[in-house]
Amino acid sequence: MKKLTSFALIAFLLFISTQALATNKVVIQVSSNDPTTQTIALNNAVNLQKAMGMDNVEIEIVAYGPGLGLLTQKSDQTKRVASLAAQDIKFSACGNTIKKVTKKTGKSPVLTEGVEIVPGGVVRIMELQQQGYAYIRP
Amino acid sequence: MKKLTSFALIAFLLFISTQALATNKVVIQVSSNDPTTQTIALNNAVNLQKAMGMDNVEIEIVAYGPGLGLLTQKSDQTKRVASLAAQDIKFSACGNTIKKVTKKTGKSPVLTEGVEIVPGGVVRIMELQQQGYAYIRP
Amino acid sequence: MKKLTSFALIAFLLFISTQALATNKVVIQVSSNDPTTQTIALNNAVNLQKAMGMDNVEIEIVAYGPGLGLLTQKSDQTKRVASLAAQDIKFSACGNTIKKVTKKTGKSPVLTEGVEIVPGGVVRIMELQQQGYAYIRP
Repeated sequence: MKKLTSFALIAFLLFISTQALATNKVVIQVSSNDPTTQTIALNNAVNLQKAMGMDNVEIEIVAYGPGLGLLTQKSDQTKRVASLAAQDIKFSACGNTIKKVTKKTGKSPVLTEGVEIVPGGVVRIMELQQQGYAYIRP
Repeated sequence: MKKLTSFALIAFLLFISTQALATNKVVIQVSSNDPTTQTIALNNAVNLQKAMGMDNVEIEIVAYGPGLGLLTQKSDQTKRVASLAAQDIKFSACGNTIKKVTKKTGKSPVLTEGVEIVPGGVVRIMELQQQGYAYIRP
Repeated sequence: MKKLTSFALIAFLLFISTQALATNKVVIQVSSNDPTTQTIALNNAVNLQKAMGMDNVEIEIVAYGPGLGLLTQKSDQTKRVASLAAQDIKFSACGNTIKKVTKKTGKSPVLTEGVEIVPGGVVRIMELQQQGYAYIRP
């Protein structure tokens, strides 16, 4: 009986860890200002959602350094970013980069609607990988 | 005695999960049409095989977007790709990209011998990471 | 009682594996000779250290292929690399690349003080990911 209880407990714990791994989670890094690379990042997110079903995958696009521009209203893609943010793709802008740009240009970049700020882009990407997110760098 | 049984079970389960992690598995992403980047991707695969021994590492090169060209017969590297495919390096071409190219150009790209098609390159890269593959993006 | 022992054992094992995952470890890949990309790699390491605290994150920058230059004394950044190496950021230069460069140019590249040589850059990056390192490719 005790063996059974132990076994059930182990099975339960394994089940939990398997679930944690089985969830589809992807972080997509945008650290380049190259328009092609930025477009591919957005396409990658859309393809993942189409393939897995919107409810079966968590996608976060983290932009930092020269990649931050993608998430500002100055980007050619601002409408597409806003639209994707509204359909469950999370966008995170690097707080460190925002501070740097603000200091350099004298004004803070205006982010696209739906974009959130994280303290540091690289720290965020590390943390997401620690939580089991797969990593894509287009 | 029951404690022993439980202990043996736990040890066995830990052993299994350790084994799963210990296997050397690497996915190399090619999403750029830059010839240098593409050459480095192939070199990386060869260096991994040389260092670990061909039987001790599973390597899959996944090409998508502008990187697809590497796996077609139009690539300067088509002979090298075919040769590497014959010596246990797996090449996966993105089905989504193939569809897009076919729609745009009116004809489907001719893949190099030994290259397989996966439904989506990014989905494949995510799945491989979920299976414990390390990720390299040259 | 036996159940309790088993439970304690499982809790202990889970604790150990959680600890292993919880340590902040990041490998940053430099495989490009683009000065901006190389600068971002160094900035990323500094931002990680600032955010987590120097004692709470292990950072290793692995340079290979065209990225090797960053770790040589010919790099514009050689002073910064030496200074970061002295403050607990690990720099690993790819032995395979060093051999290739030496063969091609007739002399071996002079590495910056504090830089270590690993047999293969890509193998090293794979191994670090297997050990739970998050991966960043700027």
